[in-house]
Amino acid sequence: MITQEFIAEELQRLQEEICAALETEDGLGKFSVEKWKREEGGGGITRVMQHGNVIEKGGVNFSAVEGVLPEKIADALLVPAQDFFATGVSIVIHPYNPFVPIIHMNVRYFELSDGTYWFGGGIDLTPHYVDSEDAMFFHGELKKVCDRFGENYYAEFSKWADDYFFIRHRNETRGVGGIFFDRLMGEEHGGKEKLLEFILEVGRTFAPVYTHLVSKNRNKVFDEEHRQWQLIRRGRYVEFNLLYDKGTRFGLDTNGRIESILMSLPENASWLYNYVPAEGTEESRTLQKLKKGQKWA
Amino acid sequence: MITQEFIAEELQRLQEEICAALETEDGLGKFSVEKWKREEGGGGITRVMQHGNVIEKGGVNFSAVEGVLPEKIADALLVPAQDFFATGVSIVIHPYNPFVPIIHMNVRYFELSDGTYWFGGGIDLTPHYVDSEDAMFFHGELKKVCDRFGENYYAEFSKWADDYFFIRHRNETRGVGGIFFDRLMGEEHGGKEKLLEFILEVGRTFAPVYTHLVSKNRNKVFDEEHRQWQLIRRGRYVEFNLLYDKGTRFGLDTNGRIESILMSLPENASWLYNYVPAEGTEESRTLQKLKKGQKWA
Repeated sequence: MITQEFIAEELQRLQEEICAALETEDGLGKFSVEKWKREEGGGGITRVMQHGNVIEKGGVNFSAVEGVLPEKIADALLVPAQDFFATGVSIVIHPYNPFVPIIHMNVRYFELSDGTYWFGGGIDLTPHYVDSEDAMFFHGELKKVCDRFGENYYAEFSKWADDYFFIRHRNETRGVGGIFFDRLMGEEHGGKEKLLEFILEVGRTFAPVYTHLVSKNRNKVFDEEHRQWQLIRRGRYVEFNLLYDKGTRFGLDTNGRIESILMSLPENASWLYNYVPAEGTEESRTLQKLKKGQKWA
Repeated sequence: MITQEFIAEELQRLQEEICAALETEDGLGKFSVEKWKREEGGGGITRVMQHGNVIEKGGVNFSAVEGVLPEKIADALLVPAQDFFATGVSIVIHPYNPFVPIIHMNVRYFELSDGTYWFGGGIDLTPHYVDSEDAMFFHGELKKVCDRFGENYYAEFSKWADDYFFIRHRNETRGVGGIFFDRLMGEEHGGKEKLLEFILEVGRTFAPVYTHLVSKNRNKVFDEEHRQWQLIRRGRYVEFNLLYDKGTRFGLDTNGRIESILMSLPENASWLYNYVPAEGTEESRTLQKLKKGQKWA
């Protein structure tokens, strides 16, 4: 039987493996370790790197929280008041070099005291400058993992990512998408064990895929204009995370540790009024690609 | 009879007067003028100054929008589906100098096709470094305006501001508060004409109060550490505006002009993981004052 403890341990191990791989790739920065407890039950380990060689600010957060499900969340989930357990790993990496993309990953398991449970997660890439080759590599690797678990997984979950990682007030996608899935239950997906293996495999895909993209782009030369554009794209990232991101809302609504929830925000971000990049520039070409329905794999 | 057009004209005049006063105080920057139309009805005039002498980024927005009330808003207001009209002036000013406070003001009028209407508004000050003298001056001036219209107005509306301009996930106030009020209806407040006069008087208080605070502090010397702290406080401002601000939500939910709604965001903001200012510093003293229930007037 797959217990809550077993799932939490597997996810915590995933956190350690990912931090180790990122430290190796970065070559300078180290992840801090903050263990925290949540007053109402459970806790987590937040690991953050600031001012590495490549990573300006990045967080790899593990948590396993439990207690009474806040009313607001019960209402949103359309379930009666009861206890809950939730464990997951969440990652956001903001690199210095504007040609290295921002990346996000989350895998999670959620269980209610009435016995219902589900898995969720996702991984999406937010290049400051869209590079088609990188986007195709990224989606190709995600498709490989998905294909091993369900023939429709990639089609379904990449569409879901397109819809989820969407900045609707800007009518632009956050980046080039990836995969997103939620409320996957064992009965419809080959059982709990298989689903756990799926989210762990998604998690294990993170480090090799991202370190490939980092090492490919980390030495590209950039100037102040590239950096300014990066700050504007980071502003959009902040808008998405504070206005729409469900993980952020869940964290705030469950009285989570604020610094762990908001580690996803970049060290610096910028908003210029009415800024539109000139036609024909790399920035303008990137904006044109931040649309739903791109076929990257 | 006080028509919608009359109220909108008065507010548009207020916008012009405030922009003129701010340009005079700044001495260099000029407000741009963008007239925009809203597809579903109405429009506005957005005026933004970037890179003045004192003002790094500031917006003074006028709008008068109308049409079918979006379902989401009707639900939130607990009113049936119908048409609406809303007009208002919104201001946020982000100065360069960390010793000059951020300021926000909004005055607004809202009417439904069933005949109900109300006025709302507020003005609050967000110093990067809390200066008690400035906070007391600010509240004192607001109290004077309030006292001319209702003997409980200041007590009631400053308490409301304390509760509204509160960053609850940080357990800190956005700044030193001010006044906030909403859904003031004529029957309970001396009639429509008197309420209109009240919000216009609040509006007319803005320029002399803020230019006083600017001229008092604009030449104070600051260094990189002060500037870094300013960026962190601006990060909190972004958190409030995107997570909690009702005006921002209303704008997004009514499909308003994005650049006008988000003009409230600073040119630059910063998030450092787990940053806590050292005890005994000015930054730490400011944090201690960002609590509800301070008596500034």
